[in-house]
Amino acid sequence: MDTGVNAYSPTDRSRVKRLHERGKYDRETVHAILDAGMIAHIAYVIPDESNGGQPYVTPTAYWRDGDTLYWHGSSASRMLRTQSAGIPVCVTVTHLDGLVLARSGFHHSINYRSVMAFGQARKVEDVAEKERELNRFIDRIYPGRNATMRGIEPQELKATTLLAMEIEEASAKIRTGPPKDDEPDYALDCWAGVIPIAQVIGAAVPDPLLKAGVDWPEHLKLFSEGRRLDALLTEHAESY
Amino acid sequence: MDTGVNAYSPTDRSRVKRLHERGKYDRETVHAILDAGMIAHIAYVIPDESNGGQPYVTPTAYWRDGDTLYWHGSSASRMLRTQSAGIPVCVTVTHLDGLVLARSGFHHSINYRSVMAFGQARKVEDVAEKERELNRFIDRIYPGRNATMRGIEPQELKATTLLAMEIEEASAKIRTGPPKDDEPDYALDCWAGVIPIAQVIGAAVPDPLLKAGVDWPEHLKLFSEGRRLDALLTEHAESY
Repeated sequence: MDTGVNAYSPTDRSRVKRLHERGKYDRETVHAILDAGMIAHIAYVIPDESNGGQPYVTPTAYWRDGDTLYWHGSSASRMLRTQSAGIPVCVTVTHLDGLVLARSGFHHSINYRSVMAFGQARKVEDVAEKERELNRFIDRIYPGRNATMRGIEPQELKATTLLAMEIEEASAKIRTGPPKDDEPDYALDCWAGVIPIAQVIGAAVPDPLLKAGVDWPEHLKLFSEGRRLDALLTEHAESY
Repeated sequence: MDTGVNAYSPTDRSRVKRLHERGKYDRETVHAILDAGMIAHIAYVIPDESNGGQPYVTPTAYWRDGDTLYWHGSSASRMLRTQSAGIPVCVTVTHLDGLVLARSGFHHSINYRSVMAFGQARKVEDVAEKERELNRFIDRIYPGRNATMRGIEPQELKATTLLAMEIEEASAKIRTGPPKDDEPDYALDCWAGVIPIAQVIGAAVPDPLLKAGVDWPEHLKLFSEGRRLDALLTEHAESY
């Protein structure tokens, strides 16, 4: 367990308790899992609600800049208005990597990579930071695409709320490899192993209203059919 | 919006506020999204914690039986011990279906299907329900597999905590189709359309310790390379 200089310092909030050998706190591991994904599940509680602290968890596209996570949406969104108040949130990113089939139900498992990151959400008010980060969001997924589009209009900036969270603590959990069975069960005539799962790109569907003569552009060449989304996002993050 | 007899009745907690035309409350839609997935993100708050209601969100395998969602894990798990106390939780399931590329950054979007389900977690103490549901979990993903394995041992039942949540309220949100751009932007020389994304099965990796002579079994025949996981789980749910 690396809890050195370049690691997030776990407290009781983020320390991996069960199967702690699966827990990692170093920035390299945490950032790699974040950079390979694009949908986070963000948990928050609406303060002072009469229903006794009902938590919500919402799927949201996110991106990372250093130790800051960003997400955005309509200024009319209840989630974003609530989070703008500066409340504690938990941002979780999960990659499902495989089904682990063991020789007993008990030892079936899942191969995965996940990160739980903790901090306080804040609303980004600075217009320059807002515009820079919204452009970064596009270029992070589609490097070079901003250059092919018109810029952000002032009323679009106004209609968009940008949230940021400095990562105060984060932990990664990873499971890889074959099943681990009870010793006597290895003698059973039961198939065991791993069935890999990955998020994969399909064949692009041009907008029916696409202007005649506009071809599949150079900046999307990595989005070829059959490619893994996590590998592609990782490649983009490294070249960014 | 179907809020008839066979629909969950939305309150302020679950009603889709933004882009409400994307919101659905009927059981058929909600159950179909749940049955096509296997990983949920579950939000909860550890009661009486000194850090002011910090929410947590944990990725967990789940399954459905009627209007009840189940998930399980080690009896030593902090998450499960906390949830056993009967606290409000939010269970969210998300399918990322595609990247929607518009002619402006503002109109970029994501095609997805998601469900947010609300209720109180409870610990299943009844041993018969526990055993039945744990077997259902295996058969839901791998129909017929239980018959090829040894049964659950009593100490395994004891070491496993099973949580259940009756769905009190649920809402589904769905986006499909091409981008919607501002009228003047359709004239731009910018590629627009949808890049589909799906979770796909890879080539199975047999356990290095697999007993000689054990072949890929009949009950896994649907897990063929290149198949979509959501389609396969849906097919299993329908035949179950």
